Amino acid sequence: MKKKEFAVIGLGRFGGSMVQALSDEGVEVLAIDNDEEKVNQFANIASHAVVGDTTDEAVLKSIGIRNFDHVIVAIGDNIQASILTTLILKELGVKHITVKATNDYHEKVLSRIGADQVVHPERDMGRRIAHNIVSNNVLDYLELSDEHSIVEIVASRRLDGNTLIDLDIRAKYGINIVAIKRGRDIIVSPQATDAIRQGDILIVIGADTDITRFEKNVVEE
Amino acid sequence: MKKKEFAVIGLGRFGGSMVQALSDEGVEVLAIDNDEEKVNQFANIASHAVVGDTTDEAVLKSIGIRNFDHVIVAIGDNIQASILTTLILKELGVKHITVKATNDYHEKVLSRIGADQVVHPERDMGRRIAHNIVSNNVLDYLELSDEHSIVEIVASRRLDGNTLIDLDIRAKYGINIVAIKRGRDIIVSPQATDAIRQGDILIVIGADTDITRFEKNVVEE
Ligand SMILES: Nc1ncnc2c1ncn2[C@@H]1O[C@H](COP(=O)(O)OP(=O)(O)OP(=O)(O)O)[C@@H](O)[C@H]1O
Ligand SMILES: Nc1ncnc2c1ncn2[C@@H]1O[C@H](COP(=O)(O)OP(=O)(O)OP(=O)(O)O)[C@@H](O)[C@H]1O
Ligand SMILES: [Ca+2]
Ligand SMILES: [Ca+2]
Ligand SMILES: [Ca+2]
Ligand SMILES: [Ca+2]
Repeated sequence: MKKKEFAVIGLGRFGGSMVQALSDEGVEVLAIDNDEEKVNQFANIASHAVVGDTTDEAVLKSIGIRNFDHVIVAIGDNIQASILTTLILKELGVKHITVKATNDYHEKVLSRIGADQVVHPERDMGRRIAHNIVSNNVLDYLELSDEHSIVEIVASRRLDGNTLIDLDIRAKYGINIVAIKRGRDIIVSPQATDAIRQGDILIVIGADTDITRFEKNVVEE
Repeated sequence: MKKKEFAVIGLGRFGGSMVQALSDEGVEVLAIDNDEEKVNQFANIASHAVVGDTTDEAVLKSIGIRNFDHVIVAIGDNIQASILTTLILKELGVKHITVKATNDYHEKVLSRIGADQVVHPERDMGRRIAHNIVSNNVLDYLELSDEHSIVEIVASRRLDGNTLIDLDIRAKYGINIVAIKRGRDIIVSPQATDAIRQGDILIVIGADTDITRFEKNVVEE
């Protein structure tokens, strides 16, 4: 199988971290920006790095952009440049295009002109961090649906020494502890007789309302 | 218990989404920016919204910032303003300070001057999305440790009709399916005799290397 080739346009904080992460995953990645300084910064991280204004069709053609399997447009503040770049990529027949959106209007236009995936890094992380901050003991979470999540909850002193049988949370709250993080160890599918220690991180799956009840009634001090 | 009061300084994409999300969670949130237009935009979303340059100690004092339980500094591009604001908040005795960092140097300085939590929204989402893009069938994931994750994997046609017993993935790959997302339903702790359907989203927990082996050998077509 031919290795997939990626290109990232716009080397700001988001685009730059995409280049770094793609390169860490061992895939081929071309980094593009119209700011030479940014391009130099990524010369040793990306497989290739080129200076170019991607709102110019000739530039994208000369790079041979249509040969890339997946192009990420990470131009944020200049919405017009982001939209124009996406439009040209689409016309040149790029198979998969992911674009960073700045606001809802921007997202709507991008979807309409054929972006395959639109992402909102700042908005999504804002929500994520707000959620973590408001629920004291929640460290991180994965939204499964509007109503279900997997969350990381720090075991308070109240929980110290309790076994899963003692707590009986499956029956009382309808939620499951799928793993326990203890220091560098991960205990997957903990046994009913396993005792929780203060500071353990409980990985809990269930309905959001049930998880919140559990937090309020059992975890919070 | 007194309701916690939050303040968000800097109403860009990240800070703005924090204000929206905190307000959605039903907590009190004060929104601050030195740009009047931004402040007007959040007048109806935040509990209060004020115009002010937070690098000026007198401004923060007049707002009564020390009475807030948690202050989020979401100034990004102007690193100096972010650092100075954090320093003043610390000196005024604010109990909990979360700051958005722009790069590693910024993060180091923030931690040194006493920020309680430093976040990198663009960097973290860049990593997250790169991971999702490279692993074809992975929709989203929660990192449990450097080596363990919970991931959402789309069931390919190859998996259609197989029960969990057929696949025997716990024995063969050392990983567990903790839930199955099917349309709007979530099946928590699926039974060994449950059959997977194409398009189901499998919520899998385990070591990253084992999950990758499972994806490559069983899921990818
Ligand atoms: N027409 C263009 N062609 C190529 N690169 C461009 C073009 N316009 C902007 N860029 C580059 O895109 C990058 C990201 O843009 P910018 O910093 O404005 O967005 P941002 O959303 O604030 O970024 P961040 O990811 O840091 O939040 C910059 O490095 C900029 O030089
Ligand atoms: N000294 C200051 N006092 C108050 N607000 C400030 C100050 N300096 C900057 N801000 C505000 O902080 C907000 C965010 O800053 P900026 O847009 O530069 O960062 P950013 O990291 O690119 O934002 P984002 O990626 O979240 O959109 C802006 O609305 C700006 O007006
Ligand atoms: Ca998800
Ligand atoms: Ca910016
Ligand atoms: Ca940004
Ligand atoms: Ca985590």
